[in-house]
Amino acid sequence: MALIVQKYGGTSVANPERIMNVAQRVAKWKRAGNQVVVVVSAMSGETNRLIALAKAIQASPDPRELDVTVSTGEQVTIGLLAMALKEIGIKARSYTGGQVRILTDDAYTKARILSIDDQAMRADLDNDTVVIVAGFQGVDAAGNITTLGRGGSDTTGVALAAALKADECQIYTDVDGVYTTDPRIVPEARRLNTITFEEMLEMASLGSKVLQIRSVEFAGKYKVKLRVLSSLEELGKEGPGTLITLEEDKDMEQPIISGIAFSRDEAKLTVLGVPDRPGIAYQILGAVADANIDVDMIIQNIGHDGSTDISFTVNRGDYAKALALLQDKVKAQIGARDIIGDNKICKVSAVGVGMRSHPGIASQMFRALSEDGINIKMISTSEIKISVVVDEKYLELAVRSLHKAFGLDQAAA
Amino acid sequence: MALIVQKYGGTSVANPERIMNVAQRVAKWKRAGNQVVVVVSAMSGETNRLIALAKAIQASPDPRELDVTVSTGEQVTIGLLAMALKEIGIKARSYTGGQVRILTDDAYTKARILSIDDQAMRADLDNDTVVIVAGFQGVDAAGNITTLGRGGSDTTGVALAAALKADECQIYTDVDGVYTTDPRIVPEARRLNTITFEEMLEMASLGSKVLQIRSVEFAGKYKVKLRVLSSLEELGKEGPGTLITLEEDKDMEQPIISGIAFSRDEAKLTVLGVPDRPGIAYQILGAVADANIDVDMIIQNIGHDGSTDISFTVNRGDYAKALALLQDKVKAQIGARDIIGDNKICKVSAVGVGMRSHPGIASQMFRALSEDGINIKMISTSEIKISVVVDEKYLELAVRSLHKAFGLDQAAA
Repeated sequence: MALIVQKYGGTSVANPERIMNVAQRVAKWKRAGNQVVVVVSAMSGETNRLIALAKAIQASPDPRELDVTVSTGEQVTIGLLAMALKEIGIKARSYTGGQVRILTDDAYTKARILSIDDQAMRADLDNDTVVIVAGFQGVDAAGNITTLGRGGSDTTGVALAAALKADECQIYTDVDGVYTTDPRIVPEARRLNTITFEEMLEMASLGSKVLQIRSVEFAGKYKVKLRVLSSLEELGKEGPGTLITLEEDKDMEQPIISGIAFSRDEAKLTVLGVPDRPGIAYQILGAVADANIDVDMIIQNIGHDGSTDISFTVNRGDYAKALALLQDKVKAQIGARDIIGDNKICKVSAVGVGMRSHPGIASQMFRALSEDGINIKMISTSEIKISVVVDEKYLELAVRSLHKAFGLDQAAA
Repeated sequence: MALIVQKYGGTSVANPERIMNVAQRVAKWKRAGNQVVVVVSAMSGETNRLIALAKAIQASPDPRELDVTVSTGEQVTIGLLAMALKEIGIKARSYTGGQVRILTDDAYTKARILSIDDQAMRADLDNDTVVIVAGFQGVDAAGNITTLGRGGSDTTGVALAAALKADECQIYTDVDGVYTTDPRIVPEARRLNTITFEEMLEMASLGSKVLQIRSVEFAGKYKVKLRVLSSLEELGKEGPGTLITLEEDKDMEQPIISGIAFSRDEAKLTVLGVPDRPGIAYQILGAVADANIDVDMIIQNIGHDGSTDISFTVNRGDYAKALALLQDKVKAQIGARDIIGDNKICKVSAVGVGMRSHPGIASQMFRALSEDGINIKMISTSEIKISVVVDEKYLELAVRSLHKAFGLDQAAA
């Protein structure tokens, strides 16, 4: 007998029929002799509907009251799923975040979980009852309702799995696992049987929207076995999904590169002819941060003749704002020669823990791109990732080129 | 400075614009120097939407889980109204039933309030903050969410007013008070400045749907000053509504009859030739009650030759079921001669505490009906009410006839 935490997202519970399907899937795990805790999101569209109501009243809704209003979305789903399970003869009981008690800090709309009381859930599980918990929500010490921010239901699932020392936390979504890259771009993309937490974090932050980053961090920290599965597969024909593992668990035969991630939403800015003196990077990037613009890659090359160039990338939506800021204010302040920018770029990355022990991955990557005639505009590396910025028009070509160069097209060993 | 509890129903908070209007009304009372507690219902249509979702999953939804799901309707409204008040510069804080803590028994979907903790609300009121409470809901001792049944938001309002010893409980609805009868039938119908609790109960039970009966009983029991007002009147042009009073408060000049109530939804059944022996009424009406059919008026006349007739009225929707039950089972069991019925009847009643001290009201009523050629089929009386059953086609005529006969057309003294 295992203790399984399952999390179902909004599309999996979008209507009564799908909720019945989820109940059947939960029932299958329960009848197989497992203890099951289920975390659910709001029915798809519901959270947006509630936020729109709030914004029709306050342009910037009061955070406490927004949480009161928005947290009802998950509360509706837990009641409905409990009914669906009872309808098919499975004992079930729903819990709001406050009923569990998932204690959080009081940072409304982006609260952090402080502790989870497992007593009531344990009693239900021992009494052959499926426990259904509203994702995305908790209460602060004073009993105020809080929410964990968008995608917070994944975090709830992982946190419950950690608190209950569950054997596995299963995240059900509309894809059947994590892929070597987006199958819409590379039809040969394969589902990975396993991926490490670190790789998953890099993939997630690069636009593979399977899991919320925070939940992956959380799972890594508390060593929760996390598995991504599809809620759309027919019962009896389910695949194994993708297991997210600690690095030491990884199969020795694992390829060096696990996947090719990419992001289209990029723009690049360069400050030319910056005086090469201490504090200059801070003057530029501090001004950008003060304007609430997130900066991703930052590159500064060695200078010549007392001046240098600093380039960085931002989300494409912030490009115009960042460009104006640099031209109108920063340029004069620091005495830069000129500001140039490009919002027709994209970022492509090779991710894999194997590159730690395999030098030469970067040069292999650059060779593949060069053979396909793709010019690299920026390079950035981390321990398990190499990212390049290229012209947007080369995105698909670059992804396919790298997917092939690192042997990801071939079936896993 | 007074402490006012206000309750706004579903149509008053049907959309963000109306919620802003409610906020303006609340703000006016607050700025006039009062402490204000506001109870709100779900936005109109929302409770039905949630029940429909539940019924799409379970024909008879699990009561605990139905309460979890349905109670979200009011929770959405409290958050939105708190935002609306903050938007216009009024301090406000929302409370679910559980947050207040409105403690109830565990009779899901029809729970009764056991106690109300006023501490948190008092602290907010003393801190110049409007308290907004979700109507219709509470928690049981184990922390499960409960609901008070349809119309339960009125009960929440009255219960809070009792717990807080409020100066007045204002029920805002889409009419500007309680009328002598339905103005759609009698254009001369007048708004009553006051009505007693007992009269209100009789009016409500006869189909004047202004207030939920239970809330009126509750207000009478705890001596809460209850006022019915319109939420649709323009600010600055509000009428005084109708104050529901204890009898001793009543103006000496009050007319004997306060109003003419009626109900269309009636059907009549008669068991003919029943053996006139003890236990017969129980055998008939017990069988009807066992079939979950509510019986209203019951009439048994003196018998002749060892047999008698028993008549009773039921809700028209139960007519076919009751008729079949009597014909197929009860008739043979008790040896009755025949069963007859009529589902084209209605009930018209004159209500007024004044009739206690004024004999002859009944005969005045029967004369008025007879002068208009209306045949009376059944008569039933209570201390402050005389009801007659007449052919459905006479309903409007009977109401107008009695409204005039008792002088209700004339302006109040």
